[in-house]
Amino acid sequence: MTLRVTFLGTSGAVPTAQRNPSAIHVNREGEEVLFDCGEGTQRQMMRFRTGFSISAIFLTHVHGDHVLGLPGLLQTLDFNDRAESLTIHTPRGTRRTVEDLVGALDARLGYPLEVREVAPGETVREGEEYEIRAFRTEHRTRSVGYALTESDRKGRFDRERAEELGVPVGPAFGRLHAGEPVELEDGTVIEPEQVVGPPRPGRRVVYTGDTRPTEETVDASEDADLLIHDATFGDDWAERARETGHASAREAGELAARAGVKRLALTHISSRYAGDASRLAREAGEEHDEAFVAEDGMEIEVPFPE
Amino acid sequence: MTLRVTFLGTSGAVPTAQRNPSAIHVNREGEEVLFDCGEGTQRQMMRFRTGFSISAIFLTHVHGDHVLGLPGLLQTLDFNDRAESLTIHTPRGTRRTVEDLVGALDARLGYPLEVREVAPGETVREGEEYEIRAFRTEHRTRSVGYALTESDRKGRFDRERAEELGVPVGPAFGRLHAGEPVELEDGTVIEPEQVVGPPRPGRRVVYTGDTRPTEETVDASEDADLLIHDATFGDDWAERARETGHASAREAGELAARAGVKRLALTHISSRYAGDASRLAREAGEEHDEAFVAEDGMEIEVPFPE
Repeated sequence: MTLRVTFLGTSGAVPTAQRNPSAIHVNREGEEVLFDCGEGTQRQMMRFRTGFSISAIFLTHVHGDHVLGLPGLLQTLDFNDRAESLTIHTPRGTRRTVEDLVGALDARLGYPLEVREVAPGETVREGEEYEIRAFRTEHRTRSVGYALTESDRKGRFDRERAEELGVPVGPAFGRLHAGEPVELEDGTVIEPEQVVGPPRPGRRVVYTGDTRPTEETVDASEDADLLIHDATFGDDWAERARETGHASAREAGELAARAGVKRLALTHISSRYAGDASRLAREAGEEHDEAFVAEDGMEIEVPFPE
Repeated sequence: MTLRVTFLGTSGAVPTAQRNPSAIHVNREGEEVLFDCGEGTQRQMMRFRTGFSISAIFLTHVHGDHVLGLPGLLQTLDFNDRAESLTIHTPRGTRRTVEDLVGALDARLGYPLEVREVAPGETVREGEEYEIRAFRTEHRTRSVGYALTESDRKGRFDRERAEELGVPVGPAFGRLHAGEPVELEDGTVIEPEQVVGPPRPGRRVVYTGDTRPTEETVDASEDADLLIHDATFGDDWAERARETGHASAREAGELAARAGVKRLALTHISSRYAGDASRLAREAGEEHDEAFVAEDGMEIEVPFPE
């Protein structure tokens, strides 16, 4: 069960030779979505071979470094003869801006494009296997973060116990695992709970976009397997982080520790740290054991909790 | 006297892992201008260290692959505290489109930005040292190409002849070279023509943007030191070039030969040739001896004619 996160762009507002503006590609079992789409995202997708079969784009806010790659990407999807519809999710009050940007060149697309506004707290994508939920962030503009949470998986099937109870090896095992009781030849009824453990939680990946630390981010990130948090600045510019609606690496680390996340990826790295961003990893690392600075092209395979 | 052309993007409509969309940086004696500005241009400028001190941008037409890098670049210039005004030159009838694109995100810039429309045949930039002139191209949309032509340089000063004629070594040499007659102590007047050769032509660099071969391109490219021509397709797709308002590499070669240009750079390479564009160089090379395929990051120093 693949859950792969590819960092396409990890720069702050101004890109550097090493970092493209913000974009993250997520592939869950072959279903691909994109979070943010800074200038140059389409070429990063080519370079890092993520594939172009995205079904939706989730924007955290409409500042240039998070959206200027949209028109080019949409156009390239069209050149590639895309027919499936594409939905762009964007914070409440920003649909018009996205449409203006995408429509500025009057490039007619050969596939349906929908721009949908998202409210904090709304479940943006619902499905049997996972959901994507928006949560409130704080960036001095209309903004949200997104949490992708998989549904619980079935509990473990205790094969040994089932055999002890006299369940015949075969289809009865599957029926029990699926939650149905099974009647044995002697009339005994075996209930699923006797041979199936408790449901196991799915995985959770959270992306904040640009933001100050917020309580809603803590809630959305509870026990997350991977939290990708704004960490534009180090302690040396912590005041600037407060002024501009960003977080410092240390603040991201503190939040990750409070939320009990397993791994913390620091992103939206200011060009001030173009030469060396190691201080960000160090400062966040003093607050949370598994903090690292994301780099363009980095691929994270998110394993199941156990 | 530097005249340096840096290819920032050489792809066709769809970029590839190797080629960014169209943009060319020209540095003449420290004065920098940009021709076209495809998505990702600002990062290419960082990667290839062209500098960001551009005084003007010249657009050949407003298709996405030639202009989508504008908003990001303008924003980064602002982040860099630019104060000097910037002029974007764009074909007649396209000013509004450029303004819509640049204004879509309502990013207020801290420096004056002017968008000026350009007619084919118009001298867009006039100066003592060089001019930039727009010429008609043919791309099934409003489009122009641009020719940068340096003013004639003074003729060569024949120092030996001057000494023979009795001109004293010193400031008189400079006055004669500058075009003033000089009277010797014995009353003889030496005219500049006696010791200064005929004016020598300056250099010429021509960029077509996307276009079919046109007579106006031939005229604008007469004796050019460098012609940068649309060569989207090879002979294998020559029909497609006609249909889509592009040129084949061979057509670019034929035109370059007719115009007597010294070197021909093939650009706007279709992603069909992503693996290997050598056939384009070969086909153009059968028509013109000095044809080559431009690559991202390639720097051409244009020497004086002799």
